[in-house]
Amino acid sequence: MDKQVRLVTQSPSAYSYPLLLKQLLHTPIIYNPDQEIVYRDSLRYTYKDLYARINRLASALTSMGVKPGDTVAVLDWDSHRYLESFFAIPMIGAVLHTVNIRLSPEQILFTMNHAEDKVVLVHEDFLPIIDAIRPHLKTVETYILLKEGPEKPATSVPLAAEYEEMLTQAVDSFDFPEFDENAKATTFYTTGTTGDPKGVYYSHRQLVLHTLGMAISLSGFSGPGRFQSADIYMPITPMFHVHAWGVPFVATVLGAKHVYPGRYEPAMLLKLLQTEKVTFSHCVPTILHMILTSPAAKDVDLNGWKVIIGGSALPRGLAKLALERGIQIYTGYGMSETCPLLTLATVQSHMVDWDMERQLDIRTKTGLPVPLVNIRVQDVVSEKEVPKDGRTPGEIVVRAPWLTQGYFKEPEKSEELWGGGWLHTGDIANVDPSGYLQITDRLKDVIKTGGEWISSLYLESLISQHEAVSEVAVVGIPDEKWGERPLAMVVPKPDFKDTLSGDSLKSFLQKFVDDGSVSKWGIPDNFVIVDQIPKTSVGKLDKKVIKKRVAEGIK
Amino acid sequence: MDKQVRLVTQSPSAYSYPLLLKQLLHTPIIYNPDQEIVYRDSLRYTYKDLYARINRLASALTSMGVKPGDTVAVLDWDSHRYLESFFAIPMIGAVLHTVNIRLSPEQILFTMNHAEDKVVLVHEDFLPIIDAIRPHLKTVETYILLKEGPEKPATSVPLAAEYEEMLTQAVDSFDFPEFDENAKATTFYTTGTTGDPKGVYYSHRQLVLHTLGMAISLSGFSGPGRFQSADIYMPITPMFHVHAWGVPFVATVLGAKHVYPGRYEPAMLLKLLQTEKVTFSHCVPTILHMILTSPAAKDVDLNGWKVIIGGSALPRGLAKLALERGIQIYTGYGMSETCPLLTLATVQSHMVDWDMERQLDIRTKTGLPVPLVNIRVQDVVSEKEVPKDGRTPGEIVVRAPWLTQGYFKEPEKSEELWGGGWLHTGDIANVDPSGYLQITDRLKDVIKTGGEWISSLYLESLISQHEAVSEVAVVGIPDEKWGERPLAMVVPKPDFKDTLSGDSLKSFLQKFVDDGSVSKWGIPDNFVIVDQIPKTSVGKLDKKVIKKRVAEGIK
Repeated sequence: MDKQVRLVTQSPSAYSYPLLLKQLLHTPIIYNPDQEIVYRDSLRYTYKDLYARINRLASALTSMGVKPGDTVAVLDWDSHRYLESFFAIPMIGAVLHTVNIRLSPEQILFTMNHAEDKVVLVHEDFLPIIDAIRPHLKTVETYILLKEGPEKPATSVPLAAEYEEMLTQAVDSFDFPEFDENAKATTFYTTGTTGDPKGVYYSHRQLVLHTLGMAISLSGFSGPGRFQSADIYMPITPMFHVHAWGVPFVATVLGAKHVYPGRYEPAMLLKLLQTEKVTFSHCVPTILHMILTSPAAKDVDLNGWKVIIGGSALPRGLAKLALERGIQIYTGYGMSETCPLLTLATVQSHMVDWDMERQLDIRTKTGLPVPLVNIRVQDVVSEKEVPKDGRTPGEIVVRAPWLTQGYFKEPEKSEELWGGGWLHTGDIANVDPSGYLQITDRLKDVIKTGGEWISSLYLESLISQHEAVSEVAVVGIPDEKWGERPLAMVVPKPDFKDTLSGDSLKSFLQKFVDDGSVSKWGIPDNFVIVDQIPKTSVGKLDKKVIKKRVAEGIK
Repeated sequence: MDKQVRLVTQSPSAYSYPLLLKQLLHTPIIYNPDQEIVYRDSLRYTYKDLYARINRLASALTSMGVKPGDTVAVLDWDSHRYLESFFAIPMIGAVLHTVNIRLSPEQILFTMNHAEDKVVLVHEDFLPIIDAIRPHLKTVETYILLKEGPEKPATSVPLAAEYEEMLTQAVDSFDFPEFDENAKATTFYTTGTTGDPKGVYYSHRQLVLHTLGMAISLSGFSGPGRFQSADIYMPITPMFHVHAWGVPFVATVLGAKHVYPGRYEPAMLLKLLQTEKVTFSHCVPTILHMILTSPAAKDVDLNGWKVIIGGSALPRGLAKLALERGIQIYTGYGMSETCPLLTLATVQSHMVDWDMERQLDIRTKTGLPVPLVNIRVQDVVSEKEVPKDGRTPGEIVVRAPWLTQGYFKEPEKSEELWGGGWLHTGDIANVDPSGYLQITDRLKDVIKTGGEWISSLYLESLISQHEAVSEVAVVGIPDEKWGERPLAMVVPKPDFKDTLSGDSLKSFLQKFVDDGSVSKWGIPDNFVIVDQIPKTSVGKLDKKVIKKRVAEGIK
């Protein structure tokens, strides 16, 4: 694909109907024209307005010279503007580059040059970054300002327009073209543990099919936690991160109310949860942890809030905390390379009456595959499917209609991702007799000690159950005798800041050795008590940095 | 397409993932292996068994010489065998011909020759038909018997195998090939008002997308009447009729329990409703009418049963009768040429507390478009979209990913179906401000009297509200002075068999003239009281036959 977006202005025949993002808008605009889109406490408008604004944005960009195949970058907090860009930019045949604003300026520069961004929509908060890297941006021709208040920010970035003014001046109807459903619609960058960020990209067909598959998975399976049209949706996963996991597209096709929180501040998030009566969200564990432990959370009724946790495994301790607040919490699993959704830890209707511990077992599982997804857990060496016994580990490999075709301009890395027709996730998991997957580790994070494989994730879930533990990360550190030995980095809860010790953790873990849950070689030798654990730009534990710090002698 | 099914044994590239029916089976077999499939009161097995039997059927047919592109016909009542055929036959790349067993032997012969059936799976009840037409079947090479009991039926049809024996002898694993998603998967024949039956056909891609769109429409919209995984599904629409409207595919991808009733007998249907605790069905109005008015229905609790009515408009009287029994009844709309689903009269959660009359208004509407469907109601002459005022009539034209590409070997008739890139349904409708469509008539059934257009469907709905009326059909009959005049054919309820008169109906209708619901020219001059109204093979009012009978002087 790359730059060769094939465009035809007419269908090849009367009956052909390529899958294009514009089709997701056909029905909600008809049957729910007055449904609301809310941005923080500063703006609310209707689906009818959304559709008019998508048309205006398309008109404005086109009149600025944006053509099918061009790439348009967005640097913004989570907003209605981002939602408009999700549709308008791909719908004119251009490619939306959702820039990861948490990367370093050098990495942002790399991604914008690599993606060949032509037009940039930039929020005033990120003007300093753009200003700093601007001399090195090779392909950008136009900058458009996104801003909150009436004031124009002081900047030397040459701004061609301001978003709201531009929309006001544009016409509110645009004749969106028909084109090949395999045309590239979006791109963004994933930061691996080594090397430069890699560009992932998705076509209209893939995004439409992901929306349909996810919608069925979220709404079609009886039980709590379902997402349906009467829900009120607020993403707390950045919109630059795999299109906020694609859920804004699902919310739109269902005609649900959207609430966008802008920058993530616990007070604003809690306020929106209350005032807008949000019922459905998704986030990484650290964000939910931040919300639940913020002082203001005590006074907010969170009962019935449905939250999907992804990005990292859902720690059992956090799941328990959420369940005790009445939150319908469960896990979703996927990767940047998989659009992302592959599985959901669906709580089925017959499980509703299960006791807390069994509920936690299900809700913290990796989940059941989403319709159309073909998942295999296979032995790393023999590539044979492992038995569904809830124990035998293997690598998750997958086929689905929405897997990235590879990394942009990186054919060699793309080949590493695919093997034998399957995308290799690098995740180690088992499958229980009911079909639920359970990831036990990343292939690269498994700790190999004295010939035994110890799961760092499993150790983290055990340690997280200690009453004094707020957060934990386990890594393997080089050991001359055993190859590797586990080390745990632990953040204590505020009340235990001065009292938590490695010895108390060690003796806490002994009971899991006694009951056979873990071998005695699995108990870490070292516990490092810290104020915070290094995280990646999307809030995951950054094990690369942790290992580096340990090597530098943090303990 | 026709016979040129393009097949490739390998994906064109590692990441390609053509949409094929086999993918609908990936997830339910994993997460609901023990879910049940029930056939009448004679058989029940699990999804795991279903999958094994699909594999066996594919193995058996292949070893009999069925090749990709060949057509395999099925003549059966609604059964687990039919469900197996829905998957196994297309999954080997062959084409499933679902033969309409209610057609005349001559028409069946025509369709089987026209579709070029090579292998025929025939239920013992239909052996006499096959025996009679066999000398004229030009392409059939193999007959396979489907039967209920242990006895072999006496027949001179040369049977190559018996279904159950054949499955027992076949291996239970089959390597289902990958091929072009546009490969033809199914075909069946639609009987128009004139000429021979016309062959409609659907590809794997179309059936998969229809399944996804329908699943979201059925499960994603909050309110009563939703279809989710915990529902128990029993179709009461023949499986030869547009794949029982495609719902068996939806039920399968959701992993719901299926119940197949075989031949439609009220006693068996009511028994299965009770013993299997059926919660979700769909049928034409006449079937529900037959069930609700059968003597045994009085003793059966039908509360909570969800029923979609399609094939014909849902009469308000029948809807009321159903609602009074606690049945969540609403309308679905589509055609043989549209796979079929286009709209559903979804009762949204904010409508649940509406009173009976407002509920009836919504439930008897034609409905809201299904996700991805692009519907336009346009003036017949100017082709401009009509205003959403709930009054102005226009023709429904549609684009969607699952519209038939035309009629098999009938390029001229195919061209009539499509115009300006839209499929023309021939249905006249209006759209209300909430987006709900309401069909008022067939373009060809509108009665043109004295320069005025009178809707035959609307008159039927008014007359059906008379306490003595069981069923009604209104047609236009030629009139020298006015062009056409409406005539109503009425079946009285049993208690009013001897008392219902045309005069009482005429004076009943006067109140609708008085309140402006209908013009005085709209009141039929003639009312014909009959024991039954002629129906088509799929249970619709057969207005062609009614007009013919009237012309022959029935009154």
